[in-house]
Amino acid sequence: VTSRRFVVGDDLALSPDQARQIATVLRLGPGDVVVLVASGAELDYRLDRVSATSVEGTVTARRSADVEPRCALTLGLPLLRGEHTELVIESATQLGVRRFVPYVSARSVVRDVSAGKLRRWERIAREAVETSRRARVPEIGDVVPWDALFDALDGRVLVAWEEERDLDLANALPAGAGGLSLVIGPEGGLGPDEVALARSRGAATVSLGRRPLRAETAAIAAVARIIAALDR
Amino acid sequence: VTSRRFVVGDDLALSPDQARQIATVLRLGPGDVVVLVASGAELDYRLDRVSATSVEGTVTARRSADVEPRCALTLGLPLLRGEHTELVIESATQLGVRRFVPYVSARSVVRDVSAGKLRRWERIAREAVETSRRARVPEIGDVVPWDALFDALDGRVLVAWEEERDLDLANALPAGAGGLSLVIGPEGGLGPDEVALARSRGAATVSLGRRPLRAETAAIAAVARIIAALDR
Repeated sequence: VTSRRFVVGDDLALSPDQARQIATVLRLGPGDVVVLVASGAELDYRLDRVSATSVEGTVTARRSADVEPRCALTLGLPLLRGEHTELVIESATQLGVRRFVPYVSARSVVRDVSAGKLRRWERIAREAVETSRRARVPEIGDVVPWDALFDALDGRVLVAWEEERDLDLANALPAGAGGLSLVIGPEGGLGPDEVALARSRGAATVSLGRRPLRAETAAIAAVARIIAALDR
Repeated sequence: VTSRRFVVGDDLALSPDQARQIATVLRLGPGDVVVLVASGAELDYRLDRVSATSVEGTVTARRSADVEPRCALTLGLPLLRGEHTELVIESATQLGVRRFVPYVSARSVVRDVSAGKLRRWERIAREAVETSRRARVPEIGDVVPWDALFDALDGRVLVAWEEERDLDLANALPAGAGGLSLVIGPEGGLGPDEVALARSRGAATVSLGRRPLRAETAAIAAVARIIAALDR
């Protein structure tokens, strides 16, 4: 499905790629209307001039985009093998994550990320915002080591941990709509010293259920449950 | 992570592939113990004879595998493009789905599935059972058209539908632990006649939230929410 929604910056400028999409793929011209998605707002944008590399137009209507989740959820995400990080960024953005903080820990298999991959993540997040009709592209932070992760998170911090037996995610969610951060463990699991460090920084370990999940399943499942519980 | 858990049939026979894994990859021999996972039970299995193509042994302990979800959830899953069906089968099996019923509907883009792909789905489901330490490999039904789908589902039937505004998934779940079926719409969406047919067969349409989700995200998110709510 080709969308007529385009995520833009505060200057409302459409990129050459977006202009090409409008001119060549959608075949729109002067008088046609597209939707611009800028931070927190949706704008109807009547095209005035269209070329294959640039577009000019006029904002004819402005509304606040009210599908943004009412909770600000930050996801601490380990670097995962293959396409799994991309998959989580795509799904978690559709579900409503506000910010991603990628990290590496002692047992991380993947330990760094190329500039090209970072740009790919940003493109995937932008496309997922368009799919889900959100108004805000989630920020993707720099990759940090485990001991710097907790400085980069907001609000109450929950760490999904396979060995946690007592506290289920459902019972660990804050009542209000304040900030919340969720950390998913890496493919190799978290070591006891890493769990101790998290707790010393005020994080609580939570269980996602009785069955071990792969990291990407855990991330999507936990984000879905949190957003469903807090975004009423 | 190489697992010592092997899913077998009721005859407890290990396949040549599994024997090779035991002999060549894990390098186990007589006296070593592996875990066999048969329908509903976990067995300790002491190896007596090991070759590269066959293994014989003795059951030394038997326990019921209690991580199986207490709810029997059937997932009606459209055929999806690329690797997306595989992804949903993998994640939804880890989360606890009991049975899959693949289907095609009017706007389905992918309309049939090769025998090789079906075997691949079955292998992915079996591996996901091993990952999540479940005891039961979900059944994957034959591909059915929309109007036969409702004959193949169990219990209360919920159809996730983007245009449903009133009934959220959370408010549509049965109180008891009886059978439940969830249908995820295809990539092209459901037509009004398809929704009408579902309702005439007793299904309820439900919302997964205010943001449109891609089919694979919707499937994983909804399964995670249902299992978390019903498998207490």
